[in-house]
Amino acid sequence: MKKKLSATYEARLNKICGWMAEEGISLVMLEDTETRRDQNIRWLTRHPGDALLFLYKPPPNHELPETSGGITYLVAWDVNLAKLYAGQTAGLILPYNDFDRKAITAITQVANNITGIPAGSKIEIPSVTSYPSFLNFVGELAEYDILCREKGAAAEINRLRAVKDKEEIAIIRKAADITNNIIDLLEKNVKSEKIKTEADAALFIETQARKQGCEGTSFETLAAGPDRSYAIHAFPSWTYAPFGGQGLSILDFGVKLDGYCTDVTLTFTRDLNPRQEKLVSLVEKAAKLALPMAHNGTPARDIAAAVDLFFKKSRKEMPHSLGHGIGLQAHEYPVIRNSSNNEWVLEPGMIFTIEPGLYDPALGGCRLENDILITETGHEILTEARIIHL
Amino acid sequence: MKKKLSATYEARLNKICGWMAEEGISLVMLEDTETRRDQNIRWLTRHPGDALLFLYKPPPNHELPETSGGITYLVAWDVNLAKLYAGQTAGLILPYNDFDRKAITAITQVANNITGIPAGSKIEIPSVTSYPSFLNFVGELAEYDILCREKGAAAEINRLRAVKDKEEIAIIRKAADITNNIIDLLEKNVKSEKIKTEADAALFIETQARKQGCEGTSFETLAAGPDRSYAIHAFPSWTYAPFGGQGLSILDFGVKLDGYCTDVTLTFTRDLNPRQEKLVSLVEKAAKLALPMAHNGTPARDIAAAVDLFFKKSRKEMPHSLGHGIGLQAHEYPVIRNSSNNEWVLEPGMIFTIEPGLYDPALGGCRLENDILITETGHEILTEARIIHL
Repeated sequence: MKKKLSATYEARLNKICGWMAEEGISLVMLEDTETRRDQNIRWLTRHPGDALLFLYKPPPNHELPETSGGITYLVAWDVNLAKLYAGQTAGLILPYNDFDRKAITAITQVANNITGIPAGSKIEIPSVTSYPSFLNFVGELAEYDILCREKGAAAEINRLRAVKDKEEIAIIRKAADITNNIIDLLEKNVKSEKIKTEADAALFIETQARKQGCEGTSFETLAAGPDRSYAIHAFPSWTYAPFGGQGLSILDFGVKLDGYCTDVTLTFTRDLNPRQEKLVSLVEKAAKLALPMAHNGTPARDIAAAVDLFFKKSRKEMPHSLGHGIGLQAHEYPVIRNSSNNEWVLEPGMIFTIEPGLYDPALGGCRLENDILITETGHEILTEARIIHL
Repeated sequence: MKKKLSATYEARLNKICGWMAEEGISLVMLEDTETRRDQNIRWLTRHPGDALLFLYKPPPNHELPETSGGITYLVAWDVNLAKLYAGQTAGLILPYNDFDRKAITAITQVANNITGIPAGSKIEIPSVTSYPSFLNFVGELAEYDILCREKGAAAEINRLRAVKDKEEIAIIRKAADITNNIIDLLEKNVKSEKIKTEADAALFIETQARKQGCEGTSFETLAAGPDRSYAIHAFPSWTYAPFGGQGLSILDFGVKLDGYCTDVTLTFTRDLNPRQEKLVSLVEKAAKLALPMAHNGTPARDIAAAVDLFFKKSRKEMPHSLGHGIGLQAHEYPVIRNSSNNEWVLEPGMIFTIEPGLYDPALGGCRLENDILITETGHEILTEARIIHL
């Protein structure tokens, strides 16, 4: 008997099961493991840890009361955790240990015994399945039609996730508020020199994120003082090097609230030389150029192309994308990049970063990154990252 | 002209190129990306970030002066970073931007133009290459023999990495010394109640790791106070919940020094009831049972089986492996697990964890994890994790 899920999770499941029906697919497997994270499982069930998720779309004549959706089987590494998070949002929860901790054992039992789907049924396995593993799946499940496609079930879920639902927008707004509060505190503490090293900044963010109710940070904070800010992504991500001294210091961070990520970058400046001032001014102008373009119907590529062109006029080049979607991952759809195969068009509910940046081994780097929500009538800038002059 | 590499890196390259010669493989591609980390590139070149690495084994009649090794081409996302870390340890460093940021473009140019290997040559791509990508590679590189195997080049490098060389052992010893220093400080600070929450413990470790010269921690510290220690891996990994109060508190952490990880788990106890005392006693006895078995020639599975059997006699079950290799990854070879297909036999230079643990939703959890080096004559316990009674 299918249990009643919360309306939000029911709606998400119905969307993907509708797609499965169109594609004639009976069973989809998703996998979230240490070496290959898949937040689609969290999106569909709330479960935040290692697991397999099976999505079963019963045939129309299925003996269970017909619903518009399907049934989920969550095979979790830690069943206690799964019950805590996904007790109301997943169908049957099963321990991974019951299947010898092997995806191939689990899928075989779910197909043959638990759902009993007929021979010849279409089963989709993750698009990231390695070629050698694919051969194993096909061998073990010879009676079924095994699909493994770049534009398969996971891609469809990723595409659905690019437009946030009301619950997601509410969580990200709250995460943005926390981020903004931390930005204000960072400004105050760098100005008062309570934060003097990269480590001071990074540890302050770790502390504040949890104090304000977040799971943690979205990714390893990148804190790069003047000597290290020329790198796009400083390595190591933070050290005990000075932060906020003469020149350009970059601070790239985000918080994760109920799984949802923010992602912002501040640049702190002090006693800039004219060439550094020029770099900062170009980055600020690029942000001002890009933001008004962010509204329903705009091809994402056009915004990125406008910024690239703007920098090119000053003989500068941005060595990364203009932005990226955010959500359960710090990097997700839509793609905000100036590349010929980027066909994403902005629509209400999309949330993404705009992050123009320029880097020069002699001058240091400057990046300004904020999180944008596309609305029916335009956009909202959810975060308040800024260039902070010390 | 091939540049002179440091002896350690030359030896590593020679080993894998010897294997390539045996297998008749001309070119191997490795890939380290955000969604799929591959520390083999760091092991072969010192480069710590996103990159492709091509290993080229020239034919015996190659016009370059014959050496026992091969040539590496490091295609790096951040060329400045690559020059800094791999300037002396990699062959040619090329920017990823030159190849449209696509692996398939890079491999095509390396094969056709940079090395000019003849049609029909064997090229090995990563074993984790997805089935859809594999089809693309085979399509684009139709004139070559494309290999994508579970037991291919990456598996061979992973196998080589299971036995550490002198340079690696020296780094891990240093990392273990730092870890031990942090353990002593943690004991002192939890006892004095300077550390009272999970956050206090986690932030203390983050701070100390960097202060003592590490890149950071090996993984997100798991700090679980008495209410959360029953989970194998607490989620979220740490919060502002109390730590070190009545019952069992688990602290699982490691430091990363020059890329090399330690991994230890302490359990703090206070005012235990008899059932909790029993749990702790079983875990300590399991560690004492396992350690004397750790020497050259022992099948790793036998040690794990002995611990599983010991727990079974008390009607307990450990829900995870007994241990795992450590090195550039927090989890690598050898496998220290009681499973029928585990054929790893211990040999000098292997470094791995032994981490018996028991977990009970009503009592909490207890785990004791230390890092072990196999020597010619037995073993050394590199770390000093312990059960700490408050």
